[in-house]
This record gives sequence, C-alpha cells and structure tokens, in this order.
Amino acid sequence: MAIDLHDYVASIPDYPEKGVVFRDISPLMGDGKAYKQATNQIVDYARNKGVEMIVGPEARGFIVGCPVAYELGVGFAPARKKGKLPRETVKATYSLEYGTSSLYLHKDAVKPGQRVLVTDDLLATGGTISATIDLVEKLGGIVVGTAFIIELTDLHGRDKIKNYDMLSLMQY
Amino acid sequence: MAIDLHDYVASIPDYPEKGVVFRDISPLMGDGKAYKQATNQIVDYARNKGVEMIVGPEARGFIVGCPVAYELGVGFAPARKKGKLPRETVKATYSLEYGTSSLYLHKDAVKPGQRVLVTDDLLATGGTISATIDLVEKLGGIVVGTAFIIELTDLHGRDKIKNYDMLSLMQY
Repeated sequence: MAIDLHDYVASIPDYPEKGVVFRDISPLMGDGKAYKQATNQIVDYARNKGVEMIVGPEARGFIVGCPVAYELGVGFAPARKKGKLPRETVKATYSLEYGTSSLYLHKDAVKPGQRVLVTDDLLATGGTISATIDLVEKLGGIVVGTAFIIELTDLHGRDKIKNYDMLSLMQY
Repeated sequence: MAIDLHDYVASIPDYPEKGVVFRDISPLMGDGKAYKQATNQIVDYARNKGVEMIVGPEARGFIVGCPVAYELGVGFAPARKKGKLPRETVKATYSLEYGTSSLYLHKDAVKPGQRVLVTDDLLATGGTISATIDLVEKLGGIVVGTAFIIELTDLHGRDKIKNYDMLSLMQY
C-alpha cells in the first residue's frame, strides 16, 4: 500500500530565518520505503518522457536524481558550485535575494539532442532550477521534464519554468 | 558483458594543485551502464553485510550511496558541512592539511544498533570517512562496511579505517 509522503517531511519553523518554514525531506530519504516510493514516482514520469540523462544541482538534487538515473539505466551529471568540477565547464548565473550565484556543468556532461530530466528536492523561487536548465541547453540538451519532491506554491517557481513540463510530488 | 570501469575515470594532472593527479568519476556517473555496474557491485557487497542504512558525506558520497540505498530499499542519510542540516545534529571534526573541518549528521539519522554502510566516491587519506564513521557511532550505529569507487593507495587511507571492512572498486 502506498504511504503518505507528507508524513516524512519535517517542517521547521523560523529556519533558516524568522517567518520561514523549512521543509526538510531528510526523514523521507532516511526511510527505505518512502525513498523508494518517491523515487519510483519520478522514474515513471521520466520513463514516459524518454529521459536519457539526469542533471541535478548540488547537493540535494543528487539525492533525488541519482536513484532515478540508476533505475532507468541512464547517467547522472551534477551541476555544481564554483571550483568543484575539475574539467572544462559551462556556467549559468542566477539571482539570489542579495546578489547572484553561479552553477557549472562539465562540457561533456550532456550531448546535443539528449533528452534530459532536471531534478531537485524543492522548487522555491525557481532560480536554481532555471540555472540548471540553462546549463543543459547551453550544451544542446533538451529538457523534457523537471521533477521535485516538494513545491512551495506561494513562491511561484512554477511560473519561472512554465515552458517546461514539471512534476512535484507534494505541494505546500 | 562487464565493462572496465577504469575507462570511465578522467585523470587530470596538476589538479587541484601541481603534482597531484585528480581522479574524476564524473564520466562513470554520466554513463548509464558504468554507473549501474559500479552501483551493483556495491549493492552486492552491502546485501552480504545485511546493511539497513547508508550514510555518505557531501556531496559525491550522495552520488555513490543513494542508488545503493534505493536498490536495497533502505534509507540514506547525508553527512553535511556546517549549517546545512536544519534539525538537531551530532558533529565530528577531522584534520586537513591546514586546520580542521567538521561534518554533521541529524540525531535521528541512524538508530542504535542499525547496520550502516558508509559510502564515498574516493578514499584518499581517510579523514572524511573517519569523521563519517564517527558520526554513525555517536548515534549507536554499527558500521558494517565502507565502500568507495576509487582508492588512492599511496595515501594509506585504508590504514586509517583498518578496523572496518572496506570495498574499493578501483585502485590507483
């Protein structure tokens, strides 16, 4: 029987700052059945899209994307912060509340025309995922879908990636 | 037919500093067949040890450990740097070439008596993995094995964890 994944989200009030409720999926990842069920939902979605490669931003995007890649028998490429990838990269910059940040992807991580799923644990304002999509497209990859464990609907990240198909397993 | 995983390691001379050859497993993770084969070797090892939980340090330890957790149907807990885990944690400090660094694990990540596999991409001097083992044991977990994609034998990390069973898929 399917379990309710909501039971495996820890809600932490006033973290990382006052007035914000942080949604922590570590109880979900820490439970074999919950982690398997969540992963399988994304696997089904990805299979229907003919996904050939998965890309996720560090670090929780790895926890979501890697078992999906394994189950599908496709590769996984990490989008990482500055100084973490040793070979030639492409770069995408995105806005934060104050200032900007950048993500990088190895130039050979995605092949032109490859059908790519982008994964992260949580969709908030959509900055990180937009930058990750950008990196994939710079390499000629086709983003056929995006998948998240949690979507924070008040932050309207969905609008930011409205040109892409999207799966979120839970909405808060 | 089994493929030779060595063909999926990129060796980068003089990175991150002169005289060091960096072994990059991103080509291995990026290839569906290679990633699956490497993961399955660790899955077989973990199954024989009766592993109930997997713990890996950020961030490449996630890429190695998460698909193993998924395939076994057990949970995964990330050992993270300062400020990354929102709930109560335990802490372990380890030495670097200059100074020290710390890793953290949620207090409820491992249950007393639980049989734990610790994973990382690479065993070098063994500092990170020793700290991760420390965290598991602080919570009463039993480290029944450690698994790495690559072991850098010249750095003798194996000696540092000689009281624990160890699997490395490739040695350099």
